[in-house]
Amino acid sequence: MGSLTPFLDDTSSLPLYLQLYAYIRDAILDQRIQPGEKLPSLRTLSRTLKVSITTVELAYDQLHVEGYIGSKPQSGYFVNSISTESAGLGVSLSPALEFSQPQPLALDPAASGLAYYDPQSFDLVKWKKCFNAILNEHSYRLFQEGDPRGEAPLRHEIAKYIYQARGVQTEWEQIVIGAGTQQLLNLLCILLNRMGISHVSFEKPGYRPVRGIFVDRNFQMTDVPLDQDGIRIDKLPANIRSTVYVSPSNQFPTGSVMPVARRYALLDWALKNRSIIIEDDYNSELRYAGRPVPSLQGLDSNGLVVYLGSFSSTLFPSVKISYMVLPVSMHQLFLEVVGGYTQTCSKAEQLTLAYYMEKGYYQTGLKKLRKLYTQKIQIASAEIQQYASSQVTILSNTSGLHLLLELKERLSGEAVEAICQRAKQVGLSVSPIADYQESSRNPLLIFYYAKVPTNLMTEAIKALAKALSGTSNHKDLE
Amino acid sequence: MGSLTPFLDDTSSLPLYLQLYAYIRDAILDQRIQPGEKLPSLRTLSRTLKVSITTVELAYDQLHVEGYIGSKPQSGYFVNSISTESAGLGVSLSPALEFSQPQPLALDPAASGLAYYDPQSFDLVKWKKCFNAILNEHSYRLFQEGDPRGEAPLRHEIAKYIYQARGVQTEWEQIVIGAGTQQLLNLLCILLNRMGISHVSFEKPGYRPVRGIFVDRNFQMTDVPLDQDGIRIDKLPANIRSTVYVSPSNQFPTGSVMPVARRYALLDWALKNRSIIIEDDYNSELRYAGRPVPSLQGLDSNGLVVYLGSFSSTLFPSVKISYMVLPVSMHQLFLEVVGGYTQTCSKAEQLTLAYYMEKGYYQTGLKKLRKLYTQKIQIASAEIQQYASSQVTILSNTSGLHLLLELKERLSGEAVEAICQRAKQVGLSVSPIADYQESSRNPLLIFYYAKVPTNLMTEAIKALAKALSGTSNHKDLE
Repeated sequence: MGSLTPFLDDTSSLPLYLQLYAYIRDAILDQRIQPGEKLPSLRTLSRTLKVSITTVELAYDQLHVEGYIGSKPQSGYFVNSISTESAGLGVSLSPALEFSQPQPLALDPAASGLAYYDPQSFDLVKWKKCFNAILNEHSYRLFQEGDPRGEAPLRHEIAKYIYQARGVQTEWEQIVIGAGTQQLLNLLCILLNRMGISHVSFEKPGYRPVRGIFVDRNFQMTDVPLDQDGIRIDKLPANIRSTVYVSPSNQFPTGSVMPVARRYALLDWALKNRSIIIEDDYNSELRYAGRPVPSLQGLDSNGLVVYLGSFSSTLFPSVKISYMVLPVSMHQLFLEVVGGYTQTCSKAEQLTLAYYMEKGYYQTGLKKLRKLYTQKIQIASAEIQQYASSQVTILSNTSGLHLLLELKERLSGEAVEAICQRAKQVGLSVSPIADYQESSRNPLLIFYYAKVPTNLMTEAIKALAKALSGTSNHKDLE
Repeated sequence: MGSLTPFLDDTSSLPLYLQLYAYIRDAILDQRIQPGEKLPSLRTLSRTLKVSITTVELAYDQLHVEGYIGSKPQSGYFVNSISTESAGLGVSLSPALEFSQPQPLALDPAASGLAYYDPQSFDLVKWKKCFNAILNEHSYRLFQEGDPRGEAPLRHEIAKYIYQARGVQTEWEQIVIGAGTQQLLNLLCILLNRMGISHVSFEKPGYRPVRGIFVDRNFQMTDVPLDQDGIRIDKLPANIRSTVYVSPSNQFPTGSVMPVARRYALLDWALKNRSIIIEDDYNSELRYAGRPVPSLQGLDSNGLVVYLGSFSSTLFPSVKISYMVLPVSMHQLFLEVVGGYTQTCSKAEQLTLAYYMEKGYYQTGLKKLRKLYTQKIQIASAEIQQYASSQVTILSNTSGLHLLLELKERLSGEAVEAICQRAKQVGLSVSPIADYQESSRNPLLIFYYAKVPTNLMTEAIKALAKALSGTSNHKDLE
């Protein structure tokens, strides 16, 4: 054991025992000390290295707990046999590691500095006030784990709100909170599986990310075309128990509303085929002409509708709080099969929102938001007329966060993609509608006007016009 | 159309147009007005009802957008045909609804008031400070959607931290954030599916909720027994590509550590069988004898290990921030297939944590926490000796949030369940280990000591002793 001659550095920030530990560990891995070999006693090594017995003891303890050495009563420590065929050099204790792209919070300039966003769209000061109220007056709640279904005060506030605003009929216990609609759909897929439902009908065009979740869960998918009243009932499967996913009050991307006759026809279909309707009510509060259309769920008296709602568009964009309302029958099943799943939504944020709603701030904020977006839509529509009317027609501008634009030219997919890329480069959010394959129609674009602050809208639409015409590197249009 | 004689109430909080809308809608649903029937003109109805033309127009607009009525150019509005076979009474606009159990935030007493929790375990004041710094200085970030993989500043801080504390070797880009380990496992399951892996080997005993996720995702499961060094390599499948889920640095529930020789053997197995090791490093920082054992990931030089970590036990219990480190190969696949999934973890909370770590508060808090828990374990162990040594033996008390207790009597499953129920009634968290079926062993219990404040530990252990002896209704032991 003459080989145990580590260089121990008194001035290092690494404690002596860890230096000794690392030295012996590497010696074992390099087989400079052989399996079965006995290590010097604590006293001997302490004398040799001129360190305290405690230092050697701590190093041996660490080697022991990690399994590099073993101990025999009255005999001391022995090196274990370790196969290192698949090993690299093991863990280095040196703290030097290069990060390819350091981005510490304090230094980082707006990471996506180019993208538009609108601080007018939400009153963060009120939110902060509510958050601090939770921390100051309700901190004991944060020291306890959350309810897997979501916090009771928030579910209570949501039940009140969706009844008044959306005509949704529910007890607060039927409401389940999740961090985003995708998260809730994951739970829903598990429920549907247990109910023996393996088939989903989906609106075409529809919201692609949601479709992907069902695909990833191995559901059999049918894309059902829309007519002017929404999803076509005659194309839905008959005589098997299945699910249909619809957005009846604000179809994505068309913004169209399903008339009440079609709603009842859909409910009839579900009743006849023992099927489930998933109603995605995303952004339905953001309707600028008239009052928002009440939910489909409110028309259902047979427990056939799962209702999905979200706060993503009516609070600030980075908050992820969504909810679903389960029919009573599915709620029972939910408690049985997915009770083991933990809640994903921040408890502090849930309680903050409950407080924010209880104080009436949410309703006030929503009113302001509708006014703000109505104004933005008017400006955006007028400016599109002014600067881009030779390139696009506005198809829908009465709801949601986007305008639906139809190109006047029958451009290729690549050309459309190029427009979106040029728009992105100047901070605008524009997407093509990939699955809108109507032969009679030119390509469609979704333009997210809501992110652009009112006072920058004219500038933004000019930039959009340039992106549309492919002249973004050319001189200003003015 | 003489039937249109609504009672319109000027003093109601409901606007006149909504009262008119509801009246006509109900008349259509009750078929008091027949399909095809023409509605009175705006001017006529406005005169009849002595309301403004605008009021009638708004009511008609709302009926129109919801599909109750249609319009024909130059002819006015007609009632649509609506089948209401499956319908109930439709949406009532009355705001009266009874909630079965109102629980508004301001009134609710501690819902789980009986359960112990320890405000000493986390410095909420510092957390609040960091949160307010984010809101004040970085609010622009909250107006932009989060990165689906998690916020860059947090991933950067985590990469630094797990390298230093756990020997995990990674670039920050390989780190994916999620609201809880379950959430990350859902993503991981999708990745494994795409890699053609459909088999998971699981520790027995192991952490049941995680096992359930794989079952729900239809993975084929093998429960692999442990020996004193951890999972038995000889029981893992050979010659098929699969996955093994292990907790090598702090096995749940035994708290045992996998020695380095077994770690290399496991890596060898994975290399030979082109398999993936999922290393759950949950609570490994909470080791009270010696230094935490470095991660298995740090020994791997072939990209075979997915590393899972969590902040749930080292911040406050209601915060849900977990992370996984993907090997480079899987990270590429991740970007391709699950880029469409949104982030579940609150962006505000992620940034708060990044700030909290950057300021060094996390490391300081962790040191305090280890000291606090070491002290609690000492007291709890001594008090169990004092008050419950005739009923249980302490098997493990060197790590994590729980003590592992072995009953001295071979009680039935029901009797063990009754003990846990009695403990719960006095606010203690005690669970049986359901899948620990060793013939030579009496039933095992997990007692979560960490939630009990230090100054209440003696009282809590006395209550535990009573729950164990079934004398919880009897007189105090003293």
